[in-house]
Amino acid sequence: MDFIKQPMEIENKSMDIIAPHLAGLNLSEAETKVYSRMIHASGDVGYAEVIRMSPDAIEATKAALLRGANIYTDVEMVRTGIHKPSFNRYGGKIECLISDPEIAEKAKREGTTRAMAAMRHFGKDLEGAIVAIGNAPTALFEVLRMAREENIRPAAIIGIPVGFVGAADSKAELAEYGEIPYITVEGTKGGSPIAASVINAILYLIDNRR
Amino acid sequence: MDFIKQPMEIENKSMDIIAPHLAGLNLSEAETKVYSRMIHASGDVGYAEVIRMSPDAIEATKAALLRGANIYTDVEMVRTGIHKPSFNRYGGKIECLISDPEIAEKAKREGTTRAMAAMRHFGKDLEGAIVAIGNAPTALFEVLRMAREENIRPAAIIGIPVGFVGAADSKAELAEYGEIPYITVEGTKGGSPIAASVINAILYLIDNRR
Repeated sequence: MDFIKQPMEIENKSMDIIAPHLAGLNLSEAETKVYSRMIHASGDVGYAEVIRMSPDAIEATKAALLRGANIYTDVEMVRTGIHKPSFNRYGGKIECLISDPEIAEKAKREGTTRAMAAMRHFGKDLEGAIVAIGNAPTALFEVLRMAREENIRPAAIIGIPVGFVGAADSKAELAEYGEIPYITVEGTKGGSPIAASVINAILYLIDNRR
Repeated sequence: MDFIKQPMEIENKSMDIIAPHLAGLNLSEAETKVYSRMIHASGDVGYAEVIRMSPDAIEATKAALLRGANIYTDVEMVRTGIHKPSFNRYGGKIECLISDPEIAEKAKREGTTRAMAAMRHFGKDLEGAIVAIGNAPTALFEVLRMAREENIRPAAIIGIPVGFVGAADSKAELAEYGEIPYITVEGTKGGSPIAASVINAILYLIDNRR
């Protein structure tokens, strides 16, 4: 049995295989790294066609990470997927309340999801922070409502909920809103590893290692 | 803004949307639930065409869960993605060593991945257990090597590593090996939420709730 076992070799070879699928998209070097890592995380080159981001999204996320802004995630899997060992210069916290019993009770009482109740609970803390959503459309809808109605402005929204009920709509609304830097994926595809991979790609840009 | 906020309503509607994509695949009721949850986790109906499982896989996994066999995962995201609150009758543990400093050091010394070193470290503990791999092809290769060379037999392997280097090969090898019940995905696609969704689907079968 012969296969590549060396982590950096695996990653470099993976990036080489992905590169041709990004040709013709006119991406900047930084965008190429973010796209590549999203495709690497999904094993799906189809992502090349459906990734959407505002022109300022990578810079805004990078600047927020560099000043130690917190990251607020909808589910634990996004938090778990962010590569903390790479946070050489990152002084912020990664917060997630989906497993908080109080949030669970509140969600049940209000007939909503725990992810949505958690975002509402974060409230003004989202101001200037990074929001990373990899699962729940309801969480993204709520963050956009808070932006519009309560003028709560995250520094950037990595909004990549997944699925067939609300995900495509919530992501379209994020892109249409336009007043907050965003990275998203058109349609039903998405998920926690994809959302986490965006943060990791931008952390690597800061580390300047990959 | 009008969208569905009720968790069970979201899930039921999602399953209704997925159902037509499984028509014609001749799936059993249990297989339909596993396929549906994998598609739900990826937002990608393309999975319907590439999911592969041995005829005994769901029953073997269910039996192992019912007798409280441990689940060994390659990465923390798989562990995090398994819905512990549903474990009504589950008495096993979910083990992952990817973040263990000793494993990291061993992997570095041996020029291999932490996921592979972790599987090797589990060794005989994998006997009769459930292996759930959602990220690292090297971990799956190592589990198959231990089965062949050391006669270590998990009760079932949920082997769904993702990516462009080794993932497709390791999954093809799992399907070809054939001596251990398996659930996998052909090709490059996969990931932690997909692997976790298989376990969750089978836990729900046991709970008989969804």
